[in-house]
Amino acid sequence: MPNASSKELAELLNGTSTDPHLVVNNISSLTSANSSSVSFYSDKKLKNQLKTCQAGLMILRKEDSNDWKGPSIFVKDPYLAFAIIANFFKKRTDFIAYQDSTALIGNNSIIDKDVYLGPYINIKENANLGKLVTIEGNVSIGSNVSIGSETIIHSQVTIGDNVQIGSNCEIFPGAAIGVDGFGYSQDEKNSWIKIPQIGSVVIYDNVDIGSNTTIDRGALDNTIIKSGVKIDNQVQIGHNCIINENTIIAGCVGIAGSAVIGKNCKIGGAAMILGHLSIAENTTISPGTMITKSIIQEGMKYTSITPFLEHREWLKFAANIKKLDGIDDKKN
Amino acid sequence: MPNASSKELAELLNGTSTDPHLVVNNISSLTSANSSSVSFYSDKKLKNQLKTCQAGLMILRKEDSNDWKGPSIFVKDPYLAFAIIANFFKKRTDFIAYQDSTALIGNNSIIDKDVYLGPYINIKENANLGKLVTIEGNVSIGSNVSIGSETIIHSQVTIGDNVQIGSNCEIFPGAAIGVDGFGYSQDEKNSWIKIPQIGSVVIYDNVDIGSNTTIDRGALDNTIIKSGVKIDNQVQIGHNCIINENTIIAGCVGIAGSAVIGKNCKIGGAAMILGHLSIAENTTISPGTMITKSIIQEGMKYTSITPFLEHREWLKFAANIKKLDGIDDKKN
Amino acid sequence: MPNASSKELAELLNGTSTDPHLVVNNISSLTSANSSSVSFYSDKKLKNQLKTCQAGLMILRKEDSNDWKGPSIFVKDPYLAFAIIANFFKKRTDFIAYQDSTALIGNNSIIDKDVYLGPYINIKENANLGKLVTIEGNVSIGSNVSIGSETIIHSQVTIGDNVQIGSNCEIFPGAAIGVDGFGYSQDEKNSWIKIPQIGSVVIYDNVDIGSNTTIDRGALDNTIIKSGVKIDNQVQIGHNCIINENTIIAGCVGIAGSAVIGKNCKIGGAAMILGHLSIAENTTISPGTMITKSIIQEGMKYTSITPFLEHREWLKFAANIKKLDGIDDKKN
Repeated sequence: MPNASSKELAELLNGTSTDPHLVVNNISSLTSANSSSVSFYSDKKLKNQLKTCQAGLMILRKEDSNDWKGPSIFVKDPYLAFAIIANFFKKRTDFIAYQDSTALIGNNSIIDKDVYLGPYINIKENANLGKLVTIEGNVSIGSNVSIGSETIIHSQVTIGDNVQIGSNCEIFPGAAIGVDGFGYSQDEKNSWIKIPQIGSVVIYDNVDIGSNTTIDRGALDNTIIKSGVKIDNQVQIGHNCIINENTIIAGCVGIAGSAVIGKNCKIGGAAMILGHLSIAENTTISPGTMITKSIIQEGMKYTSITPFLEHREWLKFAANIKKLDGIDDKKN
Repeated sequence: MPNASSKELAELLNGTSTDPHLVVNNISSLTSANSSSVSFYSDKKLKNQLKTCQAGLMILRKEDSNDWKGPSIFVKDPYLAFAIIANFFKKRTDFIAYQDSTALIGNNSIIDKDVYLGPYINIKENANLGKLVTIEGNVSIGSNVSIGSETIIHSQVTIGDNVQIGSNCEIFPGAAIGVDGFGYSQDEKNSWIKIPQIGSVVIYDNVDIGSNTTIDRGALDNTIIKSGVKIDNQVQIGHNCIINENTIIAGCVGIAGSAVIGKNCKIGGAAMILGHLSIAENTTISPGTMITKSIIQEGMKYTSITPFLEHREWLKFAANIKKLDGIDDKKN
Repeated sequence: MPNASSKELAELLNGTSTDPHLVVNNISSLTSANSSSVSFYSDKKLKNQLKTCQAGLMILRKEDSNDWKGPSIFVKDPYLAFAIIANFFKKRTDFIAYQDSTALIGNNSIIDKDVYLGPYINIKENANLGKLVTIEGNVSIGSNVSIGSETIIHSQVTIGDNVQIGSNCEIFPGAAIGVDGFGYSQDEKNSWIKIPQIGSVVIYDNVDIGSNTTIDRGALDNTIIKSGVKIDNQVQIGHNCIINENTIIAGCVGIAGSAVIGKNCKIGGAAMILGHLSIAENTTISPGTMITKSIIQEGMKYTSITPFLEHREWLKFAANIKKLDGIDDKKN
């Protein structure tokens, strides 16, 4: 693990250091810290752990300074500080450049000398891999794919032709980016004729894409995932969607084709968004909610689930659903 | 790109050509076409693009012929025509037969000489691969698998033992076809004892199967996907299901074991169909709808979602759900 | 196929054998059995098949003994007996130890001499593979992974660092075990800062994990799947979940982070469970049901779906949903 001074950590966190020259070399929980560790205290329920903590340096709120007499960095949000420092230490960890002899790279590719390429990788022609890119084993990458610096592609991922991926992204195992969208036209015999899918996918910087998530390539234009978007596992994003900055999408969500999701939205697990809709900035969609029309007003929260009931109560509810259409007429 | 005469395209489309001897060699949108292109005009909103379009040949409706004075093919549905021609050009593109030296093929296999086999493929014994089959890199194929002519298997796919796949199919990255069905019997200690899954999967011609979709093998008999069925990404199809001709299934759908889906059904995204049900022909199931019993009448549309509400309104709705069971008694 | 005497099968099943010295060597359905087969009769509807069945040995209920005059084993539950014997024969089938020359194994690994390792496998350092472990082709395994005896890992699976898997487990194609959990903290500019995910996944014995299912590693502690849990395809299990013994989870289920599911629960397809909840033992959750708060009482069944309606009826229902919030006030 690399060294870091309390001074540089405090600057990174916009915090105040009591002992700027102190040096630490790892980040630990309150219970596993030693004298070389930086730890953090955020939750009052852990006050007893704080008392016996062995950390050399503690990150905490100024108002909690009575609870810890050792070297400190004071910040507003110690939990966020923990995340920032953990990522900082991770980056400082030495990157070991390596290209496995079985990693196949197509013609006319530009590969930075400092990349990690695992075994049984198949990259087609005209690839462009930036500095400190990591590609784990058994990954399949199409033609004309560019991947920005420090991006990590985990194992079993497929990246389709012409996909562009920015810097500092992470794509988790089994994700498939840039597969054909689901577009068909029906002929007179009821057969489905495929509409060519000739767009691709553009992913900006700092995007995470979860395991077994699928993102379709555009039909004519591109599917676009903007900077800072975070997508969990098993999410499906249809062709020509645009997901704007810093929107976060939990597991099992489905977004149908050509939907446009605003910035800073929070989409709960297993929510579904139909195609060709627009969702305003800062919208929150509850887990399991089906969005069937565009949302214009910013900053609102929407929900559609039916609360669960003990099964015998539910049977009564279900029996009464059809009677609902008469409520308004009869009750007055 | 290959050449095609206006005459042969008109025959393909059941249309009328104004200049049968004209030859084109690519299909393009209105804005990117050149004098060697065939383009199409379907949407009145694009009339301005049509005016400045450089295409050598235009596909359009007869009633729009005043808007385009150049060489034309008149058809009923220009959008469908676009799809048909795009697929026609794609097929004419030269197929390059290739077998990567790392592609492993089991004993007693019959492999057509004109196939494409990418790197790090693992095919077990008794395979039968037809003419112009494409198998991309990192694919795993079990024993006794047959794959019909012109079928494309994309990367990271798994095909289980004894699976039969027809011609002109396309299976997208990460799909798993012919994995064990989910069948258990519980013993007296509450342990689940697995029921052997010894059927397989039979896929007819012209079937598309989306990325990360899973199709279970049958318990005793086969799971069957009939001709022309199109299945999107992240769909789960249980053991012993039968999906009949030209049914189309959108993303994130789940179909439990032994369900039989009729011909020409349209199943919306994230819909769920319970096991052992029959769904009549031409049924439309709305996105997110849970089908809990068989549908007998053909050609109907069914829906079950609860409309989404702004969250504070939803809280009132949720609080009243349990009162519903008293509606009928009290309101009269 | 291996031999088995009627006596040893009867002991395995806690049943009674009429001809203990009789030997069979395969298990078959009523219609395909021959004189070396053991078959089973459970369903009265198959009585005609029983009459012409050629099996050398029949497993059936004592009360059905009038329907079959040949050698018999009498048991309480012939269907369960069928499953037990099928697994017994499967185990007896000779295991052929094999390590493909392309299977890469990291330093300091301990690999039992009787394992099957397919092609294009990538196992990192410090692996520990027990007796009779099978790993199919194109599998990626991280550092410090242990896999217990007789466990089968199918193709295209990813196993992350430090994951521990017990004995007699089966992990189906495309599953990803031990990928990073979905944890972020938001900074003042609305950017999401990743919380390090440094726990792992511990899987006990006799666990099945379906195709394209994802199980996240814990944030600090481990995600835990206890003995006998069976998980179907396309399931998502978030970080720090604990799934207790013999719980069975059908396809397309999502369980958010830190949920604790009791023993012997049955979770229907596409059900969703929110994070940080506890579900009591023996709970049944209906398919498609969203669980939004903890369930304390054991042994109950819960449901939340809205029954599906023919679409025009549903439109009336949907229009009346908002009126529900006034029901209680107005109807009396």
